[in-house]
Amino acid sequence: MKATATPFDTCIAALIGDGPHRVWSLIVSLFGDMAQDQGAEIAGMQLSRITEPMGVKPQALRVALHRLRKDGWIDSRKLGRRSLYHLTTQGLKESAQATPRIYAPGPAQADSWHILIQQPLPQAELSETAQSLADDGYVPIARNTFLKAGPLPAHTFDCMALHGPDLRLPKWLRQQIGTPELAEGYDALLRNLTLLSRGLERMGTPTPLECATLRTLIVHDWRRMLLRHPDLPPDFFPEEWQGEACRAKVHDLLSRLPRPDLAVLADLQDGA
Amino acid sequence: MKATATPFDTCIAALIGDGPHRVWSLIVSLFGDMAQDQGAEIAGMQLSRITEPMGVKPQALRVALHRLRKDGWIDSRKLGRRSLYHLTTQGLKESAQATPRIYAPGPAQADSWHILIQQPLPQAELSETAQSLADDGYVPIARNTFLKAGPLPAHTFDCMALHGPDLRLPKWLRQQIGTPELAEGYDALLRNLTLLSRGLERMGTPTPLECATLRTLIVHDWRRMLLRHPDLPPDFFPEEWQGEACRAKVHDLLSRLPRPDLAVLADLQDGA
Repeated sequence: MKATATPFDTCIAALIGDGPHRVWSLIVSLFGDMAQDQGAEIAGMQLSRITEPMGVKPQALRVALHRLRKDGWIDSRKLGRRSLYHLTTQGLKESAQATPRIYAPGPAQADSWHILIQQPLPQAELSETAQSLADDGYVPIARNTFLKAGPLPAHTFDCMALHGPDLRLPKWLRQQIGTPELAEGYDALLRNLTLLSRGLERMGTPTPLECATLRTLIVHDWRRMLLRHPDLPPDFFPEEWQGEACRAKVHDLLSRLPRPDLAVLADLQDGA
Repeated sequence: MKATATPFDTCIAALIGDGPHRVWSLIVSLFGDMAQDQGAEIAGMQLSRITEPMGVKPQALRVALHRLRKDGWIDSRKLGRRSLYHLTTQGLKESAQATPRIYAPGPAQADSWHILIQQPLPQAELSETAQSLADDGYVPIARNTFLKAGPLPAHTFDCMALHGPDLRLPKWLRQQIGTPELAEGYDALLRNLTLLSRGLERMGTPTPLECATLRTLIVHDWRRMLLRHPDLPPDFFPEEWQGEACRAKVHDLLSRLPRPDLAVLADLQDGA
């Protein structure tokens, strides 16, 4: 790192101020943002250049890439002295699943909803179904009650079920879904994105490599918040909820930081 | 009572075989069936003749009439030596409330339903709302969850609420609403009504007084079962549920036992 902070350093600091990121998770965000196209590959050297300004050490990057390869998320091939990394079929599939929500211009909307209510049973017997329902995108309302957008599915786990268009969400439920912890998380993200936005104004035109670094951090922080709660319309959340303000900021920043062409990135000389 | 049981006695026995009825409650059934018209009155002597075949003693009848007068359900006036009883405004109102359900040709039907879900709170805080909802005809589904036909009302007790047309009722819920105790009650009622029906066939044409006695018992037993559970379509109840078979039997029997004209009853000589 340089002795004097550049505007770019200030931008980075705005997003990593919350503490160190897990490197493997950053790499997931990076590939999800930049390498979902058919045949997309990123060289190890490029990954290093993109993540180094975030404070990721070469050894930490190697460990993360090893872990992701072992988990079947990425794979690599050698080309001369270079290692080229790409998402596996599994990695592509899971990235593609998250992508619509991460880049959606707005939150989920629905014309109708359905509720599933489990039989009153001991907690242990409820838990298995509850986990299946949570995995399937249901919002837990009470111990045995779950809500999801759209009509009743064919299989409703032996629950009582009601589907219809008229939903009323009291304050206690909005605060249960949008917990204070989540609300604070979005407050912090909005502050950080605003700082980043100001830093960008002082930076002049960012290089493709700078775009890659900042996009990775933005997508990563946004993704981390977003995936901590179900995708729901704004009226499911408490007043003063900054989730949608963050979304608008993310979209604005990503439009100011164009997604770099991987071929351009690969041809870059080390300009540091 | 006579030494040898007449067919009429057999009919009576079919309905009071389950044990003694509370006399005040029998009188409520009797007035509800026969004295809801404007200006309708029944003389004490007639009440005695209608209830005597059921085994109601004069003293028990006097106590019951006293209690109902004290509760504001009935009132009386003297006409010569006779006491004439009639429903009060309050008694008329409460009888009129129950009448549609008791004499309805079929169970409730609904095009849509709504669920209310209370905030997870300690039981004591839930109970007050739960009682209000039960009084308002809501079916308890779980500790904090209630179901009712039709659209959302304006006031939903700070509950989460969903309204719609598509309802799915699993077996456990049908057995929770139509409990084994209720199911056995209807099984017994169906047996009793069937016995009564056979007895009626052997009786020849019943007198107006006999009609009054048997109608009172039929309406009474039917009302007692009916008001132990909410008015719901048949698919809310378990298989083999005899509620609707009982309803059909009640309608058949009441049509064979025409409601006596109170003027005719009042003019009757003691024919016993």
